[in-house]
Amino acid sequence: MLRDGRMVYRDDVPEPVPGPGQVLVGVRACGICGSDLHFAAHGGTVLEMSNRVARGAGGMEVALDRDIFMGHEFSAEILEAGPDTDTHPVGTLVTSLPVLLSDKGIDPIVYSNSTVGGYADRMLLSAPLLLAVPNGLDSRHAALTEPMSVGLHAVNKSNIQPGEPALVVGCGPIGIAIIANLRARGVETIAAADFSPTRRELATAMGAHQALDPAQGSPFDSVKAKVVFEAVGVPGVIDDILLRARHGTRVVVAGVCMQPDTMHPFFGIAKELNIQFTLAQTPEEFAETLGALAEGEMDVSPLITGEVGLDGVGQAFDDLADPERHCKILVTP
Amino acid sequence: MLRDGRMVYRDDVPEPVPGPGQVLVGVRACGICGSDLHFAAHGGTVLEMSNRVARGAGGMEVALDRDIFMGHEFSAEILEAGPDTDTHPVGTLVTSLPVLLSDKGIDPIVYSNSTVGGYADRMLLSAPLLLAVPNGLDSRHAALTEPMSVGLHAVNKSNIQPGEPALVVGCGPIGIAIIANLRARGVETIAAADFSPTRRELATAMGAHQALDPAQGSPFDSVKAKVVFEAVGVPGVIDDILLRARHGTRVVVAGVCMQPDTMHPFFGIAKELNIQFTLAQTPEEFAETLGALAEGEMDVSPLITGEVGLDGVGQAFDDLADPERHCKILVTP
Repeated sequence: MLRDGRMVYRDDVPEPVPGPGQVLVGVRACGICGSDLHFAAHGGTVLEMSNRVARGAGGMEVALDRDIFMGHEFSAEILEAGPDTDTHPVGTLVTSLPVLLSDKGIDPIVYSNSTVGGYADRMLLSAPLLLAVPNGLDSRHAALTEPMSVGLHAVNKSNIQPGEPALVVGCGPIGIAIIANLRARGVETIAAADFSPTRRELATAMGAHQALDPAQGSPFDSVKAKVVFEAVGVPGVIDDILLRARHGTRVVVAGVCMQPDTMHPFFGIAKELNIQFTLAQTPEEFAETLGALAEGEMDVSPLITGEVGLDGVGQAFDDLADPERHCKILVTP
Repeated sequence: MLRDGRMVYRDDVPEPVPGPGQVLVGVRACGICGSDLHFAAHGGTVLEMSNRVARGAGGMEVALDRDIFMGHEFSAEILEAGPDTDTHPVGTLVTSLPVLLSDKGIDPIVYSNSTVGGYADRMLLSAPLLLAVPNGLDSRHAALTEPMSVGLHAVNKSNIQPGEPALVVGCGPIGIAIIANLRARGVETIAAADFSPTRRELATAMGAHQALDPAQGSPFDSVKAKVVFEAVGVPGVIDDILLRARHGTRVVVAGVCMQPDTMHPFFGIAKELNIQFTLAQTPEEFAETLGALAEGEMDVSPLITGEVGLDGVGQAFDDLADPERHCKILVTP
């Protein structure tokens, strides 16, 4: 649970009871996402921004002064179906989009005071959203369906063609997911940029043809990119891309920058740039990604740099601050 | 001529001599563009920004401490062809993209210490770029081919379909050009927004189905726009559009904001918005626009709110500051 900005382990959470259409599952693995770290550190900003965008129509209702469940990249085993609920047999390994359907409506499994997330022994999922993990895929890999499908979504939104050179700025888990999906798409020139040598190695292992260190000169001087993926999510990065990108470049924003950011519209105007902001995968993209993992079309092993139990989540949040040590830590209860 | 930020009339400019491939023309009409007003007031910023974007590869070379020729929306009559130059007969009414080709290269007819622009009796044009004005179209209307084709370009870049509601924010000449082109495209719902009642009337005359006053409430509350055209070009407008636009909206930026601007990337991310920056028309769009004007598919008469001689350009620049009085003033030497 997140409590006052720190992850704490609680063993007194009552076991959730599945309602109609719901399923009780035992979590097998749950990835720690950068957005969880960001929420832990800046939850107030996240809520404020979400509510500003919602403009009164269903923002995020989370009380920061109460414990918060998190964890939205999971695989799990079916333990028990709710009343009148048709689903896969007990024992089936499944994954799901992080959404819980109930008679009260649609509840994202992301930050909640009441809906248990994947950093737990047991949680509820929605029978209509369950996907059985095929082909004997490892539960730890299946847990990464969610972040990998965010990469697929960004690649789909870019409409990139195989002959168009791509530059991925930032090689955290989302940048890496984009790189793997570009490679699976057959894109012939994939360049990646990150200050961290470990991340650049990972980018290469996951499919980048070249991995560039921005400290050694602008990647835009080495790559004639037609499509640029922004996967950093801090102020200043988009404007730097607008300044340096070539005429007609398509910029796909996959990093989540919550702060106000200064940009020069004229950089975009003078070169007729396009910016496509992206957020979340579609159900089709989620299912397609699970299939690609199960068929071995994408191998996420290099991404996984650590594994902890539920009582290790707090320490793992701290450890993820160092890109030389970690990319993706899995919680395996 | 622009001199120290003010338009002054000079009758001592030597008549230009056409080189090979060039044609001497007598200007019949030249529209005053908002970008000219902006350059007169903030020339230093325009040059600085253009050179930043060019990043060492061919920025704008204009000395602000010397007289500057301007005027890029013109129609003219052929007076004399240069040596070895095949072109239309003397006396033909023509228009052209504002570009002068010479043995030294390509010189935009926009702001120059040496290349005469359309605020003049006589100027040079490039024979390969000349389009004869067809169908007896009035020279004053033909002069507006340039700004009207900027509107066509923005509409083309938007990929708008007739059933997609459009909102045009800002009803200056470019906003109006967009409205007219949306109407010609058969777009079924065209809303326009401007604080000026005169501009709202003009928007309606040029094809908008509704014209909204932002002082009376956000236009986004009245129109379910799928495509939003930004035609204001001052800081804050793009961010306000990102905040208020609906999920998946395509935002086409046609206003030219030269200043740094604060935006919230998260507004775009949360709703997966797309921003397409646009600048200038293609030669095909320029020619298509001339045809549409000549065929009566678009009528620009309501746009033209004034007409002055060469000695009236300075006053016209001042008068254009008031949207209640003027939209487009033509210089007719």
